Amino acid sequence: MADKKKLVAEITSMDEDFTQWYTDVVIKAGLIAYSNIKGFMVYKPAGYALWEAVQKHLDARFKAVGVENVYLPMVIPEHLLNKESDLVNGFAPEVAWVTHGGQEELQERICVRPTSETLFSDFYKDEVQSYRDLPKIYNQWCSVVRWEKETRPFLRSREFMWQEGHTVHATMEEAEERTEQMLNVYADFCAEDLAIPTIKGQKTEKEKFAGAVATYTIEALMHDGRALQSGTSHNFGSDFAQAYDIRFTDKDNKLKYAYQTSWGLSTRIIGALIMVHGDNSGLVLPPRIAPTQVMIIPIQQRKAGVLDKAREIAQMLGDFRVKVDETDKSPGFKFAEQEMRGIPVRVEIGPRDIEAGTCVVVRRDTSEKISCAIADLPGKIAALLPQIQKDMYDRAAKHLAEHTYSAATPEEFKEAFKETKGFVKAMWCGSRECEEKIKEDMSVTSRCIPFEQEKLADTCVCCGRPATKMVYWGRAY
Amino acid sequence: MADKKKLVAEITSMDEDFTQWYTDVVIKAGLIAYSNIKGFMVYKPAGYALWEAVQKHLDARFKAVGVENVYLPMVIPEHLLNKESDLVNGFAPEVAWVTHGGQEELQERICVRPTSETLFSDFYKDEVQSYRDLPKIYNQWCSVVRWEKETRPFLRSREFMWQEGHTVHATMEEAEERTEQMLNVYADFCAEDLAIPTIKGQKTEKEKFAGAVATYTIEALMHDGRALQSGTSHNFGSDFAQAYDIRFTDKDNKLKYAYQTSWGLSTRIIGALIMVHGDNSGLVLPPRIAPTQVMIIPIQQRKAGVLDKAREIAQMLGDFRVKVDETDKSPGFKFAEQEMRGIPVRVEIGPRDIEAGTCVVVRRDTSEKISCAIADLPGKIAALLPQIQKDMYDRAAKHLAEHTYSAATPEEFKEAFKETKGFVKAMWCGSRECEEKIKEDMSVTSRCIPFEQEKLADTCVCCGRPATKMVYWGRAY
Repeated sequence: MADKKKLVAEITSMDEDFTQWYTDVVIKAGLIAYSNIKGFMVYKPAGYALWEAVQKHLDARFKAVGVENVYLPMVIPEHLLNKESDLVNGFAPEVAWVTHGGQEELQERICVRPTSETLFSDFYKDEVQSYRDLPKIYNQWCSVVRWEKETRPFLRSREFMWQEGHTVHATMEEAEERTEQMLNVYADFCAEDLAIPTIKGQKTEKEKFAGAVATYTIEALMHDGRALQSGTSHNFGSDFAQAYDIRFTDKDNKLKYAYQTSWGLSTRIIGALIMVHGDNSGLVLPPRIAPTQVMIIPIQQRKAGVLDKAREIAQMLGDFRVKVDETDKSPGFKFAEQEMRGIPVRVEIGPRDIEAGTCVVVRRDTSEKISCAIADLPGKIAALLPQIQKDMYDRAAKHLAEHTYSAATPEEFKEAFKETKGFVKAMWCGSRECEEKIKEDMSVTSRCIPFEQEKLADTCVCCGRPATKMVYWGRAY
Repeated sequence: MADKKKLVAEITSMDEDFTQWYTDVVIKAGLIAYSNIKGFMVYKPAGYALWEAVQKHLDARFKAVGVENVYLPMVIPEHLLNKESDLVNGFAPEVAWVTHGGQEELQERICVRPTSETLFSDFYKDEVQSYRDLPKIYNQWCSVVRWEKETRPFLRSREFMWQEGHTVHATMEEAEERTEQMLNVYADFCAEDLAIPTIKGQKTEKEKFAGAVATYTIEALMHDGRALQSGTSHNFGSDFAQAYDIRFTDKDNKLKYAYQTSWGLSTRIIGALIMVHGDNSGLVLPPRIAPTQVMIIPIQQRKAGVLDKAREIAQMLGDFRVKVDETDKSPGFKFAEQEMRGIPVRVEIGPRDIEAGTCVVVRRDTSEKISCAIADLPGKIAALLPQIQKDMYDRAAKHLAEHTYSAATPEEFKEAFKETKGFVKAMWCGSRECEEKIKEDMSVTSRCIPFEQEKLADTCVCCGRPATKMVYWGRAY
């Protein structure tokens, strides 16, 4: 097992240096390569396959709730971006400006989209004339550019891939309903497909999206106790409709402004996958999302019959996403690679196994080794994959529960962030000043006002005035 | 049927004005909306669904021949673009330049990718060290920007979606094999999924891709007799590897330059779909690619039992992509809409049909009406869809054959393009001068040197010198 130790030794232990562990996994598992332009990443096959899996599962969930896909231009003329002042202030400092087409200077500069509220609003202005044209539940899969200063693979980059849904409705109630519905789609997707539990709630005024009436979020807890905002859903009310003049003739024959929402989930979610489930041997992928679910590794593969049997087993497992590692590396090295890449199940098959009609099944998440008759393998794998999926969710939920603390007093609040790593639930008066003070003093931000409220105390954990809400606080990526 | 006539009257007849017919269909079938930035289009749900169908079918064909998907940055620094001089000269006049990130001027300007040979080469330079790292068969689905002067939906726009495959190999033979293999994938995809026959061949030196050793193409013939280059595959030899320093240690322990290919197919193919199959009632979609294959239209839908029966039929047809048009429009209007959108089969069901236990099935491609017992409908549709697919291909192949002419002499060549619309096969000496003269005199370009050569005469149709190749000539989009 010298090979294995060597490969594993190439990644830093997560307890020693979590940040370095993360970077090591991203590179060693073959997810990402750095390009020679700062903040722009190359998604290698293993990394892009994860995004494809996210797209496949999430898109199916979208279509089940009436979402239709479209594609809008990747650029926005400056005058259009300037129409909605909150949005301009939010994004102008970080857009990439195109000033020339070929040799010619453009009459008006255009930016690469940082997000597409402006373009969708401009499009809906023409498309929506009557209540009969409503609602429109459109989404696009694309990449966007934001000129970030600090960048890290998946978590923050100057270009990132995402989906952005943009809807338009006849009433505020319908917009609110859609905003919450899409947040639930995200939460269900995270829980059921990615095995990631999340906290659902509303962002504070300070943390909400520029131009939104309300922003909802799902917040996940990483292995190091830091939070990751994993998906957001915004209700814009009619603010954008007023800025971009989206009006329709309603059933009562009156001209009214429309109501809009938007919601997005990005490649950041791959960062969450890595940091929620990964361990010191590399990635650990939930079976539902894993591009390869079972890796068959032949032992002494040059001996007659071994490779044939491995391929035969692959055929038997045709209902699953299965591969045989036929490379000329040592079995130990192959084990380490399969573990590094997070493939949920390994099947080991060698001459002695073949003689006995058995093989060894190894779970990636627990390292448990199970001897299994070859004939029983399809049934075994069919039962094991959902079991792994469930166990991974349960472990992540346990970690979340064990790293969520309550603080009733300012002292407890400070103590909680000194001693522990995770979310801290605490009461808040509702003022921006307290949020800013907490951030300044403790580098902690409000993650959300959870839908499931509790009353932990009567007063704000910062200023001592009467509390209005319970808030999840944390340090975030 | 007044409604139907009205809707149909909204599109220009293709015999009267083919260009206007095309634009009318694109707009009336709800494929595209113009954005307020010249040359950038909005893909509406019906338009984007076609691209999704293309992606799904073509991506499956790619994966079957070992292609892996990746994603590279959308921008290229100027110095990187400048490394390969042919490519610079080919693309520099038409790239969009980003000069500012937020408020800051960039130290080096970067362009939005017009194509990604440079980025892939720069990536492969680091990834490829040994023969063990070869080949790499990577592809990306993305959009690119070229600052075109004249733009038309799908056919030519400043931003367009495509896939671009980029491979790297140890030998020239392997690169050549892959170049031809991918051209065959495109041709098979067009023939089998899109019902579009194409001519396979090689581009002349004048028409080949900037920087390529050889460019192969599939050329399709539109209904108006103009050609559309529908997919291209390039062998770069080791030219890019030399410019970007992609070297590997071969089995003989010698350091060698690698060999590369690239191949692309874009949203132009949707233009081909429209112009090969469309008619004066709108789009006609081949069943394999049609987002909706069967539209069920209830007649007198307010009568008791009609809508229920329509929905019941939709359930019976669950193996197909089927919808019920339950809107409150008149049946005539619904027929016209279904025809405009090119949905391959319509099922009409009304009170009298229900009483008789039958329904009316209407083929979009031939307008043939077929009475069918409701109980037999699943079997009928299962047989009909492949029949329509086949008939559409056969009609397109007949049109191609009937509009491909041979010219042995200069007089016949000129006459062919005066009288007729389509491809003209003629002999060529191999000189660029003749190509340029033919283009200047007759606005005709060489489409390809077909793989299937014929000897029509001994001399070039332009200069009278000895001919070396038979070429397909035509007017192209």
